[in-house]
Parts: sequence; structure tokens; C-alpha cells
Amino acid sequence: MTVNSKIDLHGIITPLVTPLLSNNELDERGLGKLINHVLVGGVNGIFILGTTGEFSRLKSKVKEDIIKTTCRIVKKRVPVLVGITDTSMHESIRLAEIAYNESANAVVLAPPYYYSVDQAELLNYYKQISETIELPLFLYNIPARTNINIDVSTVVEASKLPGIVGVKDSSGDLFYFHKLKYALRDNPDFMVFVGPEEIMAPTVLFGASGGVNGGANIFPELFVKLYNAAKSKDFETIYKLQDVVTRISGSLYQVGKNSPNYIKILKSVLSQMDICDEHMAEPFIPFTQEEQIKIENYLNEIKHFDFRQNV
Amino acid sequence: MTVNSKIDLHGIITPLVTPLLSNNELDERGLGKLINHVLVGGVNGIFILGTTGEFSRLKSKVKEDIIKTTCRIVKKRVPVLVGITDTSMHESIRLAEIAYNESANAVVLAPPYYYSVDQAELLNYYKQISETIELPLFLYNIPARTNINIDVSTVVEASKLPGIVGVKDSSGDLFYFHKLKYALRDNPDFMVFVGPEEIMAPTVLFGASGGVNGGANIFPELFVKLYNAAKSKDFETIYKLQDVVTRISGSLYQVGKNSPNYIKILKSVLSQMDICDEHMAEPFIPFTQEEQIKIENYLNEIKHFDFRQNV
Amino acid sequence: MTVNSKIDLHGIITPLVTPLLSNNELDERGLGKLINHVLVGGVNGIFILGTTGEFSRLKSKVKEDIIKTTCRIVKKRVPVLVGITDTSMHESIRLAEIAYNESANAVVLAPPYYYSVDQAELLNYYKQISETIELPLFLYNIPARTNINIDVSTVVEASKLPGIVGVKDSSGDLFYFHKLKYALRDNPDFMVFVGPEEIMAPTVLFGASGGVNGGANIFPELFVKLYNAAKSKDFETIYKLQDVVTRISGSLYQVGKNSPNYIKILKSVLSQMDICDEHMAEPFIPFTQEEQIKIENYLNEIKHFDFRQNV
Amino acid sequence: MTVNSKIDLHGIITPLVTPLLSNNELDERGLGKLINHVLVGGVNGIFILGTTGEFSRLKSKVKEDIIKTTCRIVKKRVPVLVGITDTSMHESIRLAEIAYNESANAVVLAPPYYYSVDQAELLNYYKQISETIELPLFLYNIPARTNINIDVSTVVEASKLPGIVGVKDSSGDLFYFHKLKYALRDNPDFMVFVGPEEIMAPTVLFGASGGVNGGANIFPELFVKLYNAAKSKDFETIYKLQDVVTRISGSLYQVGKNSPNYIKILKSVLSQMDICDEHMAEPFIPFTQEEQIKIENYLNEIKHFDFRQNV
Repeated sequence: MTVNSKIDLHGIITPLVTPLLSNNELDERGLGKLINHVLVGGVNGIFILGTTGEFSRLKSKVKEDIIKTTCRIVKKRVPVLVGITDTSMHESIRLAEIAYNESANAVVLAPPYYYSVDQAELLNYYKQISETIELPLFLYNIPARTNINIDVSTVVEASKLPGIVGVKDSSGDLFYFHKLKYALRDNPDFMVFVGPEEIMAPTVLFGASGGVNGGANIFPELFVKLYNAAKSKDFETIYKLQDVVTRISGSLYQVGKNSPNYIKILKSVLSQMDICDEHMAEPFIPFTQEEQIKIENYLNEIKHFDFRQNV
Repeated sequence: MTVNSKIDLHGIITPLVTPLLSNNELDERGLGKLINHVLVGGVNGIFILGTTGEFSRLKSKVKEDIIKTTCRIVKKRVPVLVGITDTSMHESIRLAEIAYNESANAVVLAPPYYYSVDQAELLNYYKQISETIELPLFLYNIPARTNINIDVSTVVEASKLPGIVGVKDSSGDLFYFHKLKYALRDNPDFMVFVGPEEIMAPTVLFGASGGVNGGANIFPELFVKLYNAAKSKDFETIYKLQDVVTRISGSLYQVGKNSPNYIKILKSVLSQMDICDEHMAEPFIPFTQEEQIKIENYLNEIKHFDFRQNV
Repeated sequence: MTVNSKIDLHGIITPLVTPLLSNNELDERGLGKLINHVLVGGVNGIFILGTTGEFSRLKSKVKEDIIKTTCRIVKKRVPVLVGITDTSMHESIRLAEIAYNESANAVVLAPPYYYSVDQAELLNYYKQISETIELPLFLYNIPARTNINIDVSTVVEASKLPGIVGVKDSSGDLFYFHKLKYALRDNPDFMVFVGPEEIMAPTVLFGASGGVNGGANIFPELFVKLYNAAKSKDFETIYKLQDVVTRISGSLYQVGKNSPNYIKILKSVLSQMDICDEHMAEPFIPFTQEEQIKIENYLNEIKHFDFRQNV
Repeated sequence: MTVNSKIDLHGIITPLVTPLLSNNELDERGLGKLINHVLVGGVNGIFILGTTGEFSRLKSKVKEDIIKTTCRIVKKRVPVLVGITDTSMHESIRLAEIAYNESANAVVLAPPYYYSVDQAELLNYYKQISETIELPLFLYNIPARTNINIDVSTVVEASKLPGIVGVKDSSGDLFYFHKLKYALRDNPDFMVFVGPEEIMAPTVLFGASGGVNGGANIFPELFVKLYNAAKSKDFETIYKLQDVVTRISGSLYQVGKNSPNYIKILKSVLSQMDICDEHMAEPFIPFTQEEQIKIENYLNEIKHFDFRQNV
């Protein structure tokens, strides 16, 4: 592998939702507006084809389109990370090639799902892929979806491989985070990003490189400001903004009931913000009117905090 | 949808392993030998691209190859069922089209995995797909892999849709099976096949249409004879053969430790039988020599039962 | 240990609910009526202080009362089994002594819960207790409540200890049952009773000694007849009665939502049958009127099957 | 209820292990030495009969002994909290009465386990008990052992009841902690203590009242110093000591394999420190020599950090 460029990331990376037209094709115009929205909000990077991006439900063509269009629109203003997770190793490598050709900055890869794997197979898998592809690679730990946790010792072994530069941990497990940071204490360049926005600040205080937070699709400034406050240990601001994050999590994100629901809520809010359509990849059942009103109401409550100006 | 042919299935369907060359391409010669082996063993149908077939790890091209080659080799001697499960609805429909063009007899579809879905979304999903494709469709319940159980009520609703003709239940949950059979009591044509070979006979005694049993890759006669015994309530034979099945499950299938391990064991045995190579789709770590010897020894013990002649 | 008597059990054992007065004392009159009800129904044994008997919620005094009163009322007409499960080994042994003094026939012991134990500790535990007490002992496997499964190999080891005569398996896992029966094939005297009534007949067909079925509190004849049918492989009757059992499980037992709910439903039905009060040990919230009406309606539907006369 | 005294707790509370003689009676001498050890270490309170205290495995008499002996030895130097968790409400109330009579300062109560309960039953349960007893009550959330999580909304409702003064949360779930603190923002007097020592500092930074940390049996100063550092946001010290905590958790606590193992390790270390015997309540299998050596080695490594002097 020839890593085509060093990558030094930190701060808030938005795991972009994938704006879709009702015919399930990429909504390029919506994508442009969304990228503009998060860049204006100050985020430090963009992650496409992650879980929030509905990657597994998109057809090949849409995956290619989103890589190309995003890289073209972002124009190197911030790093672009591309999710290449797939059940087939062949497809992951194919996506990494496209990402490389479009000059994306890194790829992000969760364990192959559906079948279970053990840690030895997993390490071998990461080794094989990192040796084949041309971009820096982030491990992606998301056991709730893949049914496997990447053990701390597997991350440590992988961190010694050339081309593997960091991990995105969406486990939400603070014990895991602290064990990981301790085990990686002699390798401070290896990046640890945390997924769930509710624990971004608590982990940045203990050395996380930043957050890959879905909420940064709709409220990018909130997360950027909270990250900066955590970075500088400004606890007055941390307390104020963490409360907003907790409130969003406990109200807005509770509408409806399933896990991709979270993505549906983000898209519903973005649609209310007139940024992109709320359409999801199939299978998709839209929110009821009652649910939509709830979302609107919670949104209004959250806006009262007005984190844009006051902090 | 125009169902291109009625399908009346019963008995033992072999969920075929996918013979692979070491370059991950389809091993056509091995596939031919395997199909011959199971047809000589008397099985009533063949199911390709199921969980045992490593479907999710295969690249598109291999999936197409196995559909075409299998249909060509089987030449309508028994029905061919094609797994079309995928995380992307688009890909599932594409596979169904190929299956239709190759004159397969039915398709088998598990819930879309990775993201969670609720029962309403699931029913909607099956409805949309069954309306789009041209072959009879079997629901495929395998919660250990997809993280969702297809509720009895969802199966009942789906059973009323034209084109949905049965369910393959790999939950291993006997409570579910009895509830399902009771709920479907007014629709005796709707087929219920059970996945785990350990409970094939117990469910056939209570009205299951048959078994889709991985062990029928290596010991097709065993399962055919056990099915026939259960069908005719010949308990002397049932007891004798069920003991063999239990022994296989408790010895041979315990070598190694992961779930696709089961497939690895089947392929290892087939390789010892000189039917096809043991190569698996990536990520794949071969058995250690110690594990291979264990498999060999267990295999020898099982052969002593000699279910081929004695029953 | 001196086992005070051989015990040869088979058939339907009712895991008795514990009739309680509203002050949480034992309802002796209700207990008498309940025992009479199940004995008239033909059951082959009575099991007190099991999970259905709310054992862990009862105070010491009530536990002693129910042992004494039951043994006195039953007067050796059928064997009485006494649950001695407790988190404290000391208390289990104390209960076994009382059972022995009251001339009960056997004791039943689940793993100590709250803290986890491993299989070696578990085997040691059963060994220590069986060596200390004077009555034959049944293992009691109920992983949903104790969070530990008694491994097949642990049961086999325990079956070799003097004084351990059988196992009550409430796992509902048919794979486990078949593995257990196979592993115990050289020890046919070791009894295997199955807890969940939905799989009593399917397991008796494969050699279970009988069922310890909660539904035999309210419909003792149903289970006795189904057991006899399974024993004699009278499939016409099996199919008819298994459908009733499935219907009860899918309707009556679905009212409300928690697991001791099942006990609450049994007590509610017994109260409607004027056998004993519906009062439960604390914490207890009675059914709403709506729920009670549902129970009544389901009960009426079930009675239409009239399994008492027709079979 | 008449709360006999206000209680204002904060800082490190040691959940005391229960020193036992080999005949399972209380080791009073060991208890005295252990209390002295943790008080010299500077802890702010003592919690007896918690999970770390093996409460559920102790016989009644030992429970009474430990309440009496602890209160007598501590002599009001720090508050004494008494665990009254039991499957029987009657027993919980009895223990609360003893605690009150011995002038303990508060009681701590987890949900009744074995049977599942819903949140309404749980709230009702806490209400009934708090109305009956005479001491301030802490809720005790430990879902890994009780199989039920006390919902944030249930804690909020309970916090409005007189006599319920705080919660000990051993879930280890940081999302839960932040939701809880946010939901209780108008009731700052309601105390939130966190169980797992690995997340004591991270939660104290966000407003936790302190930690109830098992490790404070063996290294009381470590936790007292870390608490003080977190309280004063002295991050240099936090980072240094959090690393020690992470190291203890990742080495010492990994010896052996079960959950009460953690307690076994604490007792083994205390035995090496010549404070009390390593004997556990039954079922108990001692560490192998190999495991004991591992513990010794890990202990030596940890001592090199020498957190007593350097911070």
C-alpha cells in the first residue's frame, strides 16, 4: 500500500446522511446544500457512506455517485472520509479504489457483518484490505449493528499495521474507550473518534480526537462549540451545551421506534430546514403526521437554547 | 407479479455450500460433484445462496455464476430455490430476475439486515418485492443473523399476498413453530420448512413441510430417511436416526468456534469426501491440523452408525 | 445422604401457584381447593415453591407453611416435590430439612442466582447440597430467571452423584433437550421433565418423563390427556390437544406484559373458577378491568374446545 | 416514615466486602481491620451488604451481625449505608429495621430480582418500602444482576417521594447518567453515586456526588485522591490516576472469569495485605496457585505507580 497522503484529523466529523430522491437516486442538489450547511457550521471533516449514510441500503451506483459528488463539492476544504463497509471484501476494495480515484482522504471500515467472525479473522481481514488499498484506513467499531466488538487488543495490533491510522468507536462504551486510550498510550498519533454525540465531550476530555456525530448534520455549530469547549476544558460552556445534547437525545431522537429511525429524524429535520428531502432508502415508511408534529415541537424547544449566539 | 409456475415442495432441501476456488471464483467442477452427491442421496430440492452458501460474502459475479450453473446442472430434476437476501432491495430484485431468467423455481428472502426494521416495514418490504418479481417467494426467518424475528402475525399477513408461498424458519424456536402452524391452520398450502437439522424430525411430526438442513450437503441420505420416518411416524427409525443427528451436532459441529464455522466444517468434510475444495469466501482462516484431525475422527465415529444400509 | 425413599415419577406434575391472603399469609383453604382440583384432574405429582409458586417473594414463614400444609393435605396420594432454590445455600438446606421432616418426596433446586457461577462451581454446589440433605434432588434449569444454563455435561456429571435423580428443564430449548437425552442414554432412570407446556408433548414423544406445566393448575385434565396421548403416540389426540395448548399460550397467556404475569393470569383464572384468591406476593399490581375481561373472554373461547369430554 | 436524620453524602463510599471465616460466619476481627484500612485511606462512607458484600449469599444471622458490628466499629466517624435488597419485600423491611436500630445512616435497595417487574411495579415497590421504613433510602440500579434497569423517569418519580434521597447507579451506562442528571436538574439535592470505578472521575466531572467503588476496599487513597482531583478539575492528577484505575481494571480484575470473581480478587488482595481472609460465601472455589501468582504480580506492578505519595 502506498498511502497517498498523511491525514491529521481532529474535531467534529459529520457522518453525512445521504439525500435521496423519491426514486432512490442521489439528490445532488440536496447533497450540495447539506455539505454547505455543515461546512458553514464549522465541521472539520465529512464522512460519507457511514451508518448514518444508509450505506448498506444504497445500490452500487448511488454509492459511486455520492463519493464522486461529495469530493467534487467539498473540493479539499475539509477531509472526506468514505465508508467502505460491506459483507463482501471484494466490494469494500472496489469502493476504496473509487474513493482513491476521487481523491478522498481516508476510508472507514466496519467488520464484515451477517456472519460472525473472531478476532483473529478480523485482524487478518483488516490486514489484507489495508495492504490492498491506497488510502489511510480507520477501523469502525459498531457492535450494535455488526454483532461483533473489535477487541482492544485487536485495535492495538491493527494500529501497528501501516495504513491503519485510527478507529471510529460507536460502541458507546466508556470502559472500552478508556481501555483503548490506555492501551494506545505509546502511539498518540493513532486517532480515536467517538460516535455517539452524547459522549463526545466526556471522551474529548480524556483524549479522544473528536466526534463523528450524526447530530452535526442538523446542528453543526453545537457540536463544534462543544468540542472546542471540551478541548479547552471550559466547563461552563461544556455544561451548558452538554445539556442541549442530552435534551436532543432525550426528546427529538425518541420520536418513532427503530434504529434507522435516528436517520429518519435527521432527514425529517433537514427537510424542515429546507436542506434536503426526507426520503430514505427502502424499506421506508414515512413518519405519521403526529410524529412529524412532535419533531417540530421538540425542534422549537431546542432552538430556544440558541447555542449559535450565546456561547 | 406473474408466478411462472406453481411450486409444491416437501421433504429435504439441501442448502448448498458454495464450492470456491482459492481465487474466490466459483468451483464449477466441485459444484457439479456436490449437486450429483446430494441428488444421489435423494434430496427433494436445492437451495443456493442461502446462509450455508455464504451468500453475503460472495461478489456479484459469483452469485450470478452459481445461479446459472446450478440451474443448468440440475436441469429441473428437483426444484431450485435461490436466495436473494441483501441489504439493498435493488440487489435482491436483480437476483430474482436472474433466477427467473435461469428458470429457477422460487426465491428465498430474509429481512434486510444491518439496520433494524419493524414488522410493518418488514411486511411492506415483502409486499413490494413480491409484487415486483416473477417467482414464488419464501420468507426466510433467521433472527440470529438478521437480528429480527419475523413475527407470526407478519408471516400470516404475508401468506395472504399472492406470490408468497412459504417460510423457511431457521430460528430453532419450537414455540414459534407451533404458533406459526396454528396461525396458518386455515392455509395448509403455505409451506413451513425448518432450518436446524436437529429439529427437523420433531417438526415434521407436527406438520412441517420438510427441512432445509445443512447436514444434507454431506449426509443427504440420513436426512431423507429421517424425513421419511417422521412423515410415516416410524418411531423406531426416528429414534435411531435422530440419535445420529444429535451426535453429529454435538461432535462434528463443535470443532472450532464461530458460526460460519458450521459451513467451514461442511466444506472440510466435503473436501475429505473429495467432492469440493474447503476454501471459503474471505475472511477465511483454515482449520488447524489439530482441528482437521478432530473432524476426521468424529466423521469416522459417525460413519460407524452406517445409516445408509441399516435403516 | 440417606435417600429416604426411591422416587419414580412420570407424567404431569403441577407446579402449584401459592394461594395467598391479602395480608400475604398462606391461604390454606385456597390451597386445599387447588390441590383437590388438580388431583381430580389426574395429575401425577405436585411441585410447590417453584417459579410458578412465587418462591423467592415469599417470607420464610409462608414457605414453611406451604410445605407442611401441602404434605398434610396430599397425604401421599401423589409425590410432593419441594423447591428449595435460594441465593443462600444455608437457606436451601434448611428448606430441604423441613421438606424431609414433612415427608415430602423430593426437592428441586435451581442454580443460586444474582451472582454468576461457572459450571465447576455449579457442579460443586449440587454436590455439596446433595451430600447434606436427605431427599432425592432434581436439578432445575431455568436460565431465563437464573441467567445461567446448566450445561449438558454438568447434568451428566451430576447424574452420577447419589441422590440426584433427575432434572426439570425450563429452558424451552429443544436442542438442549435432545442433547441431554442423548448424553444420558446409558442412564435411563435419570428423569428429564420439561417445563414449558407448549413443548411437553413434543418432548414426551422423544423420551421426556413428563411435564411440569403451569397450565396444569387451571386445566389439569388437558395436560394429563395430552401426556397420555403423547405416551401412546395417539397423534389424532395429540394434534387436537396441542392446538388447545397453543391457543392458550397465544391468547390467555398474552394478557399483560411481564413474566410473573403468567402466574398472575393463572391466579386470576383460579379466582374466576372460585378456587383461590388472585392475590400475589409483593410487588403486585392487580390486572385492570380491561385485562380481566380479556382473560374471561379467552377463557370462554378455550372452554369451547371442551377437552374434558371429547377426547 | 420519619427520616431519623438528614444525610449529606459525597465522595468515595467503600462497598465493603464481607470478611468471612471458613465456617461462613462473620470474621469480626477482619471486618475491624478492613474498616480501619478504608477509614485511614480517607473514604467518606461505608456501604455494607451491597453486591460487593455478597449480600444474597449470606445467611440472615451473618447479615444481622455485619450491620451491628460495622455500626459499632465505625462509631459515626463516617456514614454507614446498609444494603437491604432481597427477593422478598418482607426481608428488606426487616433489614431496614435492624439498620435503623443500629443507627445506620441510610439503606440501599435494588429492584427485587428473579422475577421480572415493570416500571410501575417498581415505583410502587419503592413507594411502599420507603413509607414503611425509618431511614433515608437510595435506589440501587444494577441491571446486570437484577435484569431490570430503573428507568430515568422512574428515578425522577421516586426522587419526589419523601425518604428517597439518591441513587447508586452501577449500570456503567454514561448515556443513562447524563439523562439522569439532566432529568434531575431541578433537584440538585438528590444524590447520584456511580458504581464502576472506571467511570467515577468522568462522572464526577459532570456532577456525580461520588463513587461507590469496590477498589476502595484495597486502594482507598487512590479513589479518594482521584475523586478530589475530579472535583477540583485538576486534570494532570486525573490523567495520572485514571491510568492506574484503567490498569487495575485491565490486569488485576481480569484474573479468573466470573462476575463474583471481582469480589474474590478483592478478598485475595486483602488477604495478601493481611487484612482479612479470602474466604467467600458458598458456592466458592478458591483461586488456583497460578491465578494467585498472577494477582500478586499485577499487584506489584500497580504498586509501582505509588499513588499514595506522588500525587
